[in-house]
Amino acid sequence: MEKKKIVIALGGNALGKGMAQQQEAVARTARIIVDLAQQGHSLVITHGNGPQVGMIQDAMESLTVVHKNYEQTPLPTCVAMSQGYIGIDLQNAIKYELLSRSIDGKVSTILSQVEVDRDDPAFKNPTKPIGRFLTKEEALENEANGIRCIEDAGRGYRVVVASPMPKRIRELETIRTLLRAGHIVITCGGGGIPVVSDENGKLIGASAVIDKDNASSLLAEKLGADYLVILTAVEKVAINYGKENQEWLTDLTVEQAKEYIAQKQFAAGSMLPKVEAAIRFAQSGKGRKTLITLLDKAAEGIAGKTGTVIYADGR
Amino acid sequence: MEKKKIVIALGGNALGKGMAQQQEAVARTARIIVDLAQQGHSLVITHGNGPQVGMIQDAMESLTVVHKNYEQTPLPTCVAMSQGYIGIDLQNAIKYELLSRSIDGKVSTILSQVEVDRDDPAFKNPTKPIGRFLTKEEALENEANGIRCIEDAGRGYRVVVASPMPKRIRELETIRTLLRAGHIVITCGGGGIPVVSDENGKLIGASAVIDKDNASSLLAEKLGADYLVILTAVEKVAINYGKENQEWLTDLTVEQAKEYIAQKQFAAGSMLPKVEAAIRFAQSGKGRKTLITLLDKAAEGIAGKTGTVIYADGR
Repeated sequence: MEKKKIVIALGGNALGKGMAQQQEAVARTARIIVDLAQQGHSLVITHGNGPQVGMIQDAMESLTVVHKNYEQTPLPTCVAMSQGYIGIDLQNAIKYELLSRSIDGKVSTILSQVEVDRDDPAFKNPTKPIGRFLTKEEALENEANGIRCIEDAGRGYRVVVASPMPKRIRELETIRTLLRAGHIVITCGGGGIPVVSDENGKLIGASAVIDKDNASSLLAEKLGADYLVILTAVEKVAINYGKENQEWLTDLTVEQAKEYIAQKQFAAGSMLPKVEAAIRFAQSGKGRKTLITLLDKAAEGIAGKTGTVIYADGR
Repeated sequence: MEKKKIVIALGGNALGKGMAQQQEAVARTARIIVDLAQQGHSLVITHGNGPQVGMIQDAMESLTVVHKNYEQTPLPTCVAMSQGYIGIDLQNAIKYELLSRSIDGKVSTILSQVEVDRDDPAFKNPTKPIGRFLTKEEALENEANGIRCIEDAGRGYRVVVASPMPKRIRELETIRTLLRAGHIVITCGGGGIPVVSDENGKLIGASAVIDKDNASSLLAEKLGADYLVILTAVEKVAINYGKENQEWLTDLTVEQAKEYIAQKQFAAGSMLPKVEAAIRFAQSGKGRKTLITLLDKAAEGIAGKTGTVIYADGR
């Protein structure tokens, strides 16, 4: 099989829920990643952090409740913390899986920042849910304190934060250097630590959580990857989802995908941003393809056996 | 001036107290680091995390108080979180200082784990203070819950945790790769995320905080550094400290240093571990020297104008 440069964006189920579950979940995720590494592919791993960054934000908030003399912790600082602890668990699981197969592979985790536009309209319209599910009472209390909440698909209420579009991966050269040295690189965790650049070029943390699929799409584009693999909770993308005439899609050109978006076939905050991220990467260069599938189906999907492939110029 | 490979271990004052102060403190620290980078030295930066990891541990503990359905967070996870947020602030400050001087320098932060021995006696005898100062009542309550506390130099009580000796820097190859590529590398934050290796080689987080000077000494040794620079709250090491016959030391051979240790000249938990870390690096290879001085005096110290240099084979 041809060796590819692949950016793999792990969804929430790759990390499990909570500290203890994360250890188990990443062990399973590592097997799938190492399967791909054994095929000789060059791999960059990104991951989400919605529940984790919400937990850290809750913790830092709780700290100010229990111990009055602590300051509030900015959201980008919470993202940096989440990169730290998720990254190291993933790295260790991959390293251990390599070791179990007697492969002397290199894995590293790069703290990474993703620059966004200060004037991104997302700052005025928070849409990204983070953290745990809240009761209606908790949501109302948050709203009273200026913290936006939404009702999330009938499962309860959640805090929402701004999710601006990623413009620049600040640690791109570091990632390239380690990839060239043969590392599996874990980076852009939680979509990257969101930063804006001031008029002097100073980076300042932004109160936001960047969509990890959008960040991964930009990363894959800038690294000149062959594949962007978005791993999620479904094996394929569907049109007429949940309806009688539901149809699973195997191949999807950028043009068809845009047409389906125009038809509102994909749910906002769910499949829509994934398809949009997929399109951006697929149309960023010749031969570039995005695969959307289940975590367990990643290798099969890259071998062309399952998943939905979005491409601009022929599969 | 000769170009050196230097590991710089930043003390607490390099980071300031609290979130807002950290931003200011790292800006000042960055100027000192970039001064050294401009002289052509190859730099690896390590830092402590005592107050920060204690704050994170307090936060994760507060989370379980305020929201009952969260699990306890292990201490090594708190260390990983502290590497995340301290590292990125330091990195940005250094990058901005480089930019201000129109230098296109590379800076990266590597999440890093330091392996310790499972049977290290430190696990049975916690000595490293972390976090904020506690009242006597809080300390007694902690002790009742099995959390060891000590009275810290008349300033109040603090939680103490195990501080085992570092045995192996797990991310050494990653650090080497980035150094070779011209990066200023920030790593081994808070002494590194403490891990032990099980019988299958799996890394497991250890409930400890490794002394950052010890970790830095090992790192400097394994990187084949010329200098280990331990930046602290005094310009020089003294004997008869605080007494009438107090004497500031400029040059100190490993043999003299060991003699002074035998005389109990250096305070446990303060200058003693620094001198011990200094000795280990100085005697690890020909021409290796440790400098102990103030943050502000780093460049002068390396130029031989101040600080205390500990060496094995002639300055």
